[in-house]
Amino acid sequence: MSALDSREAPFDLVIRNADVATASDRFHSDIGVKDGVIVALGRNLPAAPREIDATGLLALPGGVDGHVHLDQPMPDGMRMADDFYTGTRAAVCGGTTTVIPFAAQVKGGSLRDAVSDYHRRAEGKAVVDYGFHLIVADPTPKVLAEELPQLISEGYTSFKIYMTYDDLKLSDREILEVLSVAREHQALVMVHAENSDCIAWLTDKLVGQGRIAPKFHGLARPAAVEREATHRAITFSELVDVPILIVHVSGKEAISQIRWAQGRGLPILAETCPQYLYLTADDLGRPGDDGYEGAKCVCSPPPRDADNQDAVWRALKQGVFSVFSSDHAPFNYDDPEGKKLGGKAQSFDHIPNGIPGIETRMPLLFDGVRRGKLSLHQFVELTSYRPAQLYGLYPRKGTIAIGADADIVLWNPEARVKINNDALHHAVDYTPYEGIEVTGWPVHCLSRGELLVSHGRYLDPEPGRGRFLPAGAPSLV
Amino acid sequence: MSALDSREAPFDLVIRNADVATASDRFHSDIGVKDGVIVALGRNLPAAPREIDATGLLALPGGVDGHVHLDQPMPDGMRMADDFYTGTRAAVCGGTTTVIPFAAQVKGGSLRDAVSDYHRRAEGKAVVDYGFHLIVADPTPKVLAEELPQLISEGYTSFKIYMTYDDLKLSDREILEVLSVAREHQALVMVHAENSDCIAWLTDKLVGQGRIAPKFHGLARPAAVEREATHRAITFSELVDVPILIVHVSGKEAISQIRWAQGRGLPILAETCPQYLYLTADDLGRPGDDGYEGAKCVCSPPPRDADNQDAVWRALKQGVFSVFSSDHAPFNYDDPEGKKLGGKAQSFDHIPNGIPGIETRMPLLFDGVRRGKLSLHQFVELTSYRPAQLYGLYPRKGTIAIGADADIVLWNPEARVKINNDALHHAVDYTPYEGIEVTGWPVHCLSRGELLVSHGRYLDPEPGRGRFLPAGAPSLV
Amino acid sequence: MSALDSREAPFDLVIRNADVATASDRFHSDIGVKDGVIVALGRNLPAAPREIDATGLLALPGGVDGHVHLDQPMPDGMRMADDFYTGTRAAVCGGTTTVIPFAAQVKGGSLRDAVSDYHRRAEGKAVVDYGFHLIVADPTPKVLAEELPQLISEGYTSFKIYMTYDDLKLSDREILEVLSVAREHQALVMVHAENSDCIAWLTDKLVGQGRIAPKFHGLARPAAVEREATHRAITFSELVDVPILIVHVSGKEAISQIRWAQGRGLPILAETCPQYLYLTADDLGRPGDDGYEGAKCVCSPPPRDADNQDAVWRALKQGVFSVFSSDHAPFNYDDPEGKKLGGKAQSFDHIPNGIPGIETRMPLLFDGVRRGKLSLHQFVELTSYRPAQLYGLYPRKGTIAIGADADIVLWNPEARVKINNDALHHAVDYTPYEGIEVTGWPVHCLSRGELLVSHGRYLDPEPGRGRFLPAGAPSLV
Amino acid sequence: MSALDSREAPFDLVIRNADVATASDRFHSDIGVKDGVIVALGRNLPAAPREIDATGLLALPGGVDGHVHLDQPMPDGMRMADDFYTGTRAAVCGGTTTVIPFAAQVKGGSLRDAVSDYHRRAEGKAVVDYGFHLIVADPTPKVLAEELPQLISEGYTSFKIYMTYDDLKLSDREILEVLSVAREHQALVMVHAENSDCIAWLTDKLVGQGRIAPKFHGLARPAAVEREATHRAITFSELVDVPILIVHVSGKEAISQIRWAQGRGLPILAETCPQYLYLTADDLGRPGDDGYEGAKCVCSPPPRDADNQDAVWRALKQGVFSVFSSDHAPFNYDDPEGKKLGGKAQSFDHIPNGIPGIETRMPLLFDGVRRGKLSLHQFVELTSYRPAQLYGLYPRKGTIAIGADADIVLWNPEARVKINNDALHHAVDYTPYEGIEVTGWPVHCLSRGELLVSHGRYLDPEPGRGRFLPAGAPSLV
Repeated sequence: MSALDSREAPFDLVIRNADVATASDRFHSDIGVKDGVIVALGRNLPAAPREIDATGLLALPGGVDGHVHLDQPMPDGMRMADDFYTGTRAAVCGGTTTVIPFAAQVKGGSLRDAVSDYHRRAEGKAVVDYGFHLIVADPTPKVLAEELPQLISEGYTSFKIYMTYDDLKLSDREILEVLSVAREHQALVMVHAENSDCIAWLTDKLVGQGRIAPKFHGLARPAAVEREATHRAITFSELVDVPILIVHVSGKEAISQIRWAQGRGLPILAETCPQYLYLTADDLGRPGDDGYEGAKCVCSPPPRDADNQDAVWRALKQGVFSVFSSDHAPFNYDDPEGKKLGGKAQSFDHIPNGIPGIETRMPLLFDGVRRGKLSLHQFVELTSYRPAQLYGLYPRKGTIAIGADADIVLWNPEARVKINNDALHHAVDYTPYEGIEVTGWPVHCLSRGELLVSHGRYLDPEPGRGRFLPAGAPSLV
Repeated sequence: MSALDSREAPFDLVIRNADVATASDRFHSDIGVKDGVIVALGRNLPAAPREIDATGLLALPGGVDGHVHLDQPMPDGMRMADDFYTGTRAAVCGGTTTVIPFAAQVKGGSLRDAVSDYHRRAEGKAVVDYGFHLIVADPTPKVLAEELPQLISEGYTSFKIYMTYDDLKLSDREILEVLSVAREHQALVMVHAENSDCIAWLTDKLVGQGRIAPKFHGLARPAAVEREATHRAITFSELVDVPILIVHVSGKEAISQIRWAQGRGLPILAETCPQYLYLTADDLGRPGDDGYEGAKCVCSPPPRDADNQDAVWRALKQGVFSVFSSDHAPFNYDDPEGKKLGGKAQSFDHIPNGIPGIETRMPLLFDGVRRGKLSLHQFVELTSYRPAQLYGLYPRKGTIAIGADADIVLWNPEARVKINNDALHHAVDYTPYEGIEVTGWPVHCLSRGELLVSHGRYLDPEPGRGRFLPAGAPSLV
Repeated sequence: MSALDSREAPFDLVIRNADVATASDRFHSDIGVKDGVIVALGRNLPAAPREIDATGLLALPGGVDGHVHLDQPMPDGMRMADDFYTGTRAAVCGGTTTVIPFAAQVKGGSLRDAVSDYHRRAEGKAVVDYGFHLIVADPTPKVLAEELPQLISEGYTSFKIYMTYDDLKLSDREILEVLSVAREHQALVMVHAENSDCIAWLTDKLVGQGRIAPKFHGLARPAAVEREATHRAITFSELVDVPILIVHVSGKEAISQIRWAQGRGLPILAETCPQYLYLTADDLGRPGDDGYEGAKCVCSPPPRDADNQDAVWRALKQGVFSVFSSDHAPFNYDDPEGKKLGGKAQSFDHIPNGIPGIETRMPLLFDGVRRGKLSLHQFVELTSYRPAQLYGLYPRKGTIAIGADADIVLWNPEARVKINNDALHHAVDYTPYEGIEVTGWPVHCLSRGELLVSHGRYLDPEPGRGRFLPAGAPSLV
Repeated sequence: MSALDSREAPFDLVIRNADVATASDRFHSDIGVKDGVIVALGRNLPAAPREIDATGLLALPGGVDGHVHLDQPMPDGMRMADDFYTGTRAAVCGGTTTVIPFAAQVKGGSLRDAVSDYHRRAEGKAVVDYGFHLIVADPTPKVLAEELPQLISEGYTSFKIYMTYDDLKLSDREILEVLSVAREHQALVMVHAENSDCIAWLTDKLVGQGRIAPKFHGLARPAAVEREATHRAITFSELVDVPILIVHVSGKEAISQIRWAQGRGLPILAETCPQYLYLTADDLGRPGDDGYEGAKCVCSPPPRDADNQDAVWRALKQGVFSVFSSDHAPFNYDDPEGKKLGGKAQSFDHIPNGIPGIETRMPLLFDGVRRGKLSLHQFVELTSYRPAQLYGLYPRKGTIAIGADADIVLWNPEARVKINNDALHHAVDYTPYEGIEVTGWPVHCLSRGELLVSHGRYLDPEPGRGRFLPAGAPSLV
């Protein structure tokens, strides 16, 4: 195929000599790109105006981060540190070329308004493509009968619901109603599964005893509380007969329920996150200079222990999880609008929940490939292919194949990197993974054929170049 | 890419407008083939001397049947009906372009001699490519220390062992020794897991009671007997710390053990076969004209019941199984060298074990895709991609990707076919699946770019065109 | 017994030649009774003024029915057919000499008032001894901090809570609070475990579709709904670290959760009832003359199917259950205050929940002894010994031993009886077990040495002879 | 007791004011004994020639140790340190009044001869009553068809079989044959479940590597090897449809299989021993003065770790086990016929297997009652009641009830005792439990009404006073 030359160049761009890996395959090939789309695979493709030499690099589908919070308005004087610009900048620097943040309904408010608001927040800022999950916080009859069906048809085919947090949580009955809409209109419901009452009861007991340091956050949300809500959510899925996705699963208790359900043939999907592989409850007890540094790791469900980390790695390898996301929730540490809400250290139950991780997600998991924790194909599956499928973006995203968007990341699988917040591209003043050393980091990152990161350097593309991706129906593959 | 024209045609063959499906991806593309290898994917590839129009057809990787018996010498006057010619002819007519039969050591004999013998049987006959599993029936110190390591290095990287059948079974100690060699030299051991003593004890009881009809074959090999041996084999794998593959798993008892092991993170792989999806113990009781027709379905382990069929389908969907094989064991029914050994109906314990299925394997599973029992990607994974990986043939076989052999099958997913032995291409006088109607059948089948089946018609290629495939190390993906 | 050799007879009563069976032992002995208490065991005890010949009969501890509803005020014009007189009369005729009905708090009302009210209902009526469980329907701070601890100290050491029924159900938070009180003051909490929201959602759907016949009661309360609440209750027990008892477990789904918890060492106790051994969902569909007869079997959780009956029998044998109760809830069938509320057939969600069974409880289970479903010792354990232990009545009740009350039932283990409502002693106009034939029935029944039933005939003892039994702390044995 | 009012004293002996505990009951009573049998229970029984004041003491049924080796001829110059005299002396000093040692068939020898031989060994020596289990090491057709059925009818209703040890182990087929006899003639088979080939393979590897110290005994018999054989034995029980009892279960792997089987309703019984509650693999590594002291704890299966100890305690509480035995196997430590076979330290595979424990069995478990690990009733059940039932000795042994033998042990539940070999009564030169402190020890021990231990002092009764107990059919209660 040496002679594919013609009068006009058939490609805008050719990536040469790539070691391509997809969710299942691996092959050496050039990649021909035209108008931002992969149009040819083959060796010795004809020359193109732009060429990238991928010799020695892995070519992987750009990451799809299916669980990120960007510029989400917060109650009580809290503020997220990342907007769509800094958030997507950090994403692409870490190999992620598609993000799916949330458009969150406010209780009493309209979902449609939320969606419009979030579009405004994204426009002119995002540097990679994005979709939206909805957060359904108030499933009124109007929302259920009109807004949701209409929004699904417009490309918002996934929504998240909460079983905890006073301003977000739904009753069991409301969950059943939302799942029914998902079933009828083919959407995928993501579930934050923790028992709200148990957490409140434990929190009141702890605070009443003066046990308010960040480390008590973990005691207020034990694994049994997550396991219970997971079992309950599974039951709802079974009754309504619709798939659900349990998000940010933290360890073996919840995993046991998910395995049990999957073993019965129930359509239960699951996601986990880097914090459950790299952090433990001990990190919530980090003193730091001010005895409060554990707040940097406060997220829900909380990290557990080494035994649970092993259980999560094992479940990743065994296919229990479909999606590996960051749950990026960007709050500054030393900030009166962040972890130190109001300017001083808080009782654990007032610390904003969530940690940043959009840029480190893929390298942290990739390091597991090197250590034999999962295969390279599983890495692609978890970080890109399956989220693209589940969130209705495949085959446009999630693979390197004819017709797909040229969202391609060229990895150096040998690069050793010590994670250091100064080198990251988010707007948060810390990373919980500071000092962890990983092997493997993205070198060049392309979004629709445009090079956004080159030789590890962010090329400062035009904010707003990222496009909204209306989602199709979820595919369970 | 409309203008990939050049002075010399870059391709020998272009398949046009294929709806390509691999283990993970699906895309519309032309496929460019040169010298029997896939060299380009893209739309509107330049013209080639040979072109095939795939409009409306699925292009799937040719099947890899990882469990077939062809021309295997048998004791006691039994004879297999298929040799490498008729067996591979039937294979390709059913969409299978690679077969891996067994080279069986005889107790007291050499493995090397067995391999040489089987090469002679294949040469000049096979019409598709083939590898060999070894059957280790007599693991003498010489076999363990010399023959096996040498053969592994030459491309025989998988071997089968038996926990039953007097002429084949190994003791527990011998199994541990064989697994140790597999671990040291990176080979994959396939295990026929049934408890030999239990079967003998039950058989003697049944025969002693005069219960000799074919249907008693099932009572002599209950599911508990398979479950026990499966648990035992898992324990051996755990002790030696090496993957094993449990072959022809028949139902929920054995599946429960495999799930349990996989859930613990043990490297237990499993295979199932069409007989466990389409036949039941009732089929062993089919009277037929001579009250003996059940013999047509005598295989080991025996088919169970509808509940177990469901369990097997469910486990396929959930990824418990890696491989779907035929376990093709071709004995004629009305033949003194076949099921009616010696010319008349036999006591069940003398009926040759095994049933034909090399041609029907893929259509029978494909029908499950239509019925929502598994996805198209899982179909590819089970019938082609994973056997190629596990048996060291990937990336040459098992996918449609740059650099892979052009073993491609173009399926009509809508064709309705009623299975009828007259229309099949093996040399066996019956099929156990007679009369079953399936949707989906191969239309055109290519092996290394050569069209062997066109419009469903076998083109009678040169016997012996099939090549031996030395296998690499097993890959667990 | 200082006067075994004295002038005055040492016993008021001697039962001669009894074949005594307790929860663990079996021996032939006479039983010497003085002042209503068992004071001697031995062969050939000296003569007494009253003697009963027990030759050929089993002497068993009188039954303790730990779950009965008697004369409980109902909302909406419903009325229970049995008061403490007819209820305890029926109890003793079926071999039960202790009943523990409920004193039910009304939302907004005081527990203390409820207890006083129920004492008034029992006094002057009960013919056998009785305790009270509390029903905590409104755990206000005052109830939790004052009423409950005080009542526990007075001998009300068990309380029931509901996870369903609008007028009774507690929130998860309230359940945690009640369990905490039970832990601190050593009481036992009984849990009605069904998910309220799921039932409401399913009921609304069914009624909305016009599916209102009694049989839809079963569809509105599927096993998954019971399983979910059981798992949730187990989690609460685990968090608070206190035993709970799951009442009226209907089948394998809930049993699976209970087994799982017990296997982990959690203090989860369980009860089942005759309806889960003898009725199925089909009985809810019995047409009867008016197409409504299924209402006779409407109870919650509903009966399941034959497979679940087997699972309950098996769990009884294996010790999963501690208690076998009637859950006697006496509503007339053909009565505007009963099943035909308002005088005509109702939509299933308006049928009063519960069925009568206080008299048939022990014979229905005893029949299982004959059929090898459980041992005679297990029969005693489930119907008498363990409820006495758990509800703080042992060693006064629950056994035949020195110092225990002479509550003794002499059974004819060979009597064949066809259950027939005309022969029963409750005030309900039907029995759901009509026509079932059992082997084994009580012949003579004594309460504190007084013969209340003789040769199967009720002797019409003085109403009000039954005494209130203040309960001690629960014993888990 | 015909003469309660007669001139002659009705009792030979009265125990006064006992706090009696049986498998289910607890009551204060005197105990009247006549001719070695319990004939009356009651308060203030009339005076008797002999009286024992039990004030402040528990009266428990004498222990039944269902697994002891006494004076068993050993191969290879090994010798057991205890004969029937020293062994039964130690038994009664520890509260055990019935022992059931083994009569072991030699391969090639007759079972009948073995039984005769063991009777000779016991006669004139035993000080408490005894039965015999058979060890079936060579199930020839004659043994199966003649000897076993005849011996069962004579009162040898339990037999032990081995899945390991070259001189004892049976093939799978032989096990099935033995179980079939047990089924037909109602006997109970006890199974030593470890996979022989796995142990041999691991042992050869370890010894080949020069790893011969006692601690490698544990590595040669990992838990997986016990689990496998347990699963296999369960399968045999299932196929033959007969109860079996898995002896000396060491930890959670085997327990998991037993729970699984019991949960399915299979009649799988299990036994555990003190070594699995008090020793761990670390004890096999005790150096001692000669680096060899770990040999004192060499038994099979070997002790595991703290986690497994917990699992065994938990399973005791939950009723997974029926029997708690010593598996007393008395070898001296510093003895050329004992652990130092031939006079010097041995490679681990030559150390005689087994440890002494007949006297410490009951106190070690009783200490668990104090610590809340099990109830007092469970203690009685495990050490006396259930072995008596299973081994056909109930109601003569195993309880305190009318008609039972007066085998009664009066315990001081508060006595604190530090275990010290000098104070024990066996003939072995060590105890593996040296230095462990327990609370609770027997004060007075009676066998058929005769006081053998008084105030903790052995009264030196006549050797040979113990009687052979022909066993009835096993009762599963």
